[in-house]
Amino acid sequence: MGKDKDKAAPTELDLRSLLVVPTDPAEAREKLADIDPRSTPGGPENKEEAVARTDRYATELQELQVRLRANAENSRHRRILLVLQGMDTAGKGGVIKKTIGLLDPSALALHSFKAPTAEERKHHFLWRVRNNLPYPGQIGIFDRSHYEDVLIQKVHAMADTETIESRYDDINAFEQDLVGDGYTILKCFLNVSKDQQKERLLERLDNPDKHWKFNPADIDERQHWDDYQDAYLAALTRCSTSNARWYAVPADRKWYRNWAVGRLLLESLRDMDLEYPPTTFDVAEQRQRLLDESA
Amino acid sequence: MGKDKDKAAPTELDLRSLLVVPTDPAEAREKLADIDPRSTPGGPENKEEAVARTDRYATELQELQVRLRANAENSRHRRILLVLQGMDTAGKGGVIKKTIGLLDPSALALHSFKAPTAEERKHHFLWRVRNNLPYPGQIGIFDRSHYEDVLIQKVHAMADTETIESRYDDINAFEQDLVGDGYTILKCFLNVSKDQQKERLLERLDNPDKHWKFNPADIDERQHWDDYQDAYLAALTRCSTSNARWYAVPADRKWYRNWAVGRLLLESLRDMDLEYPPTTFDVAEQRQRLLDESA
Repeated sequence: MGKDKDKAAPTELDLRSLLVVPTDPAEAREKLADIDPRSTPGGPENKEEAVARTDRYATELQELQVRLRANAENSRHRRILLVLQGMDTAGKGGVIKKTIGLLDPSALALHSFKAPTAEERKHHFLWRVRNNLPYPGQIGIFDRSHYEDVLIQKVHAMADTETIESRYDDINAFEQDLVGDGYTILKCFLNVSKDQQKERLLERLDNPDKHWKFNPADIDERQHWDDYQDAYLAALTRCSTSNARWYAVPADRKWYRNWAVGRLLLESLRDMDLEYPPTTFDVAEQRQRLLDESA
Repeated sequence: MGKDKDKAAPTELDLRSLLVVPTDPAEAREKLADIDPRSTPGGPENKEEAVARTDRYATELQELQVRLRANAENSRHRRILLVLQGMDTAGKGGVIKKTIGLLDPSALALHSFKAPTAEERKHHFLWRVRNNLPYPGQIGIFDRSHYEDVLIQKVHAMADTETIESRYDDINAFEQDLVGDGYTILKCFLNVSKDQQKERLLERLDNPDKHWKFNPADIDERQHWDDYQDAYLAALTRCSTSNARWYAVPADRKWYRNWAVGRLLLESLRDMDLEYPPTTFDVAEQRQRLLDESA
């Protein structure tokens, strides 16, 4: 194992450049076709190494989270929105447990998007998204997101083609607004293979303690696998903008996937150039006040 | 160090019985007066032991969290509400980072109560509390809570005596309703001493990276220390009901405090008798469907 692979200068490894979905549609298509879900670009080659490298960056990640939070005391609006998308079993929950679980829960804002409620359906599709955005200083995590409105809704024709088409533009405009308001947006597509999904579903069936996670409809959805891949391709190419990139994370190996999302988050936080806000009081005076107390 | 002190049968250690605030007001007063914030009842005696014992119960805590969540798939309404109260620097944030940080963030619902907003002030004091309750299957954590309305509001006479008086009853009725709806309520008063608070404030002043956490008003509040202790005594004795007990956690030693809150949570989860919901589909049939796929 090399030296300090995850505590290096940003020049040593730039995982974002390896996993980013190009903004040019033709290039993006080519790149997505080339990525093997079992591959481990730029990353550890086995579970032990992944755990060791994650441990090594965990402290920096935690320190940067504190700085981000401190920044909010300074009337700055900086915050991060991490969007997690992927087919069933791709590991959105695993990333949250293992990678997001490294962070301090107090400065997280996690929202899991389910099928829209009756009330949500009465509003524009971005309404419920706006209602669940992180506050300044927080790291927001979306477990599924507004992209469901161009994924499952497209695959099952729950909206007409024209509506779906307009949503890509709506999403891009929306995300650009967020960036203008101090957001850093990090969108991760957890790219699991159809074979690997089958294995994971079989594992759930073979373990009675995991039956509550299984739904026979998960198998029905597999019949639409190719349509989903097309919908992902469209979403990722249409909405990987310079403001808000998509990253395609190979997800057949859980330890690579967990390491990679944390690493992408680390690189994004480093780029935010987070300093503690300036001290707004006289330290010596406050010290003296405490020491002068009669009690 | 003894054997498996935190993986024992519940009979071996019942921390709740050691820390519970009695429902009888006279007994409660006596017990609260007796508790030394530096003491470590039933717990580890030093930091190393605390870390080791916390590691030992972490797995069971995580497993019980999964079971609680699985229960929600079964239309059961079980959930936990952990209320954290304490003076500034008592360590609400530390408990969330170190103890709640052991859990899977996806099934947490954390809410931090600040000074009420203009909108919140227009409503009954429990309005904003009801809006931030955990869903079934979640562990909700309140960093401060509805108790602020009988603590800071009482100390600074932000409401008249009659109103404050009526709030104790309102709180008890509210919490009883929650219990009827499947909540387990665990209320922890992190009991820090005035001297220890002074040390922690000085530490913040001595570390420029912690200045953002310091507010000169924190020292002003120390002038009201005794009034706060009286207000806590009233809140804890009036609202430690058989439905929703208060636990007084000695908090001068951070490692004891963090261990103790996790241990109280563990004992509460054990008592909920959480089973995985029954399987609702034919496992063999679903297995076959997956294996029969043409792909």
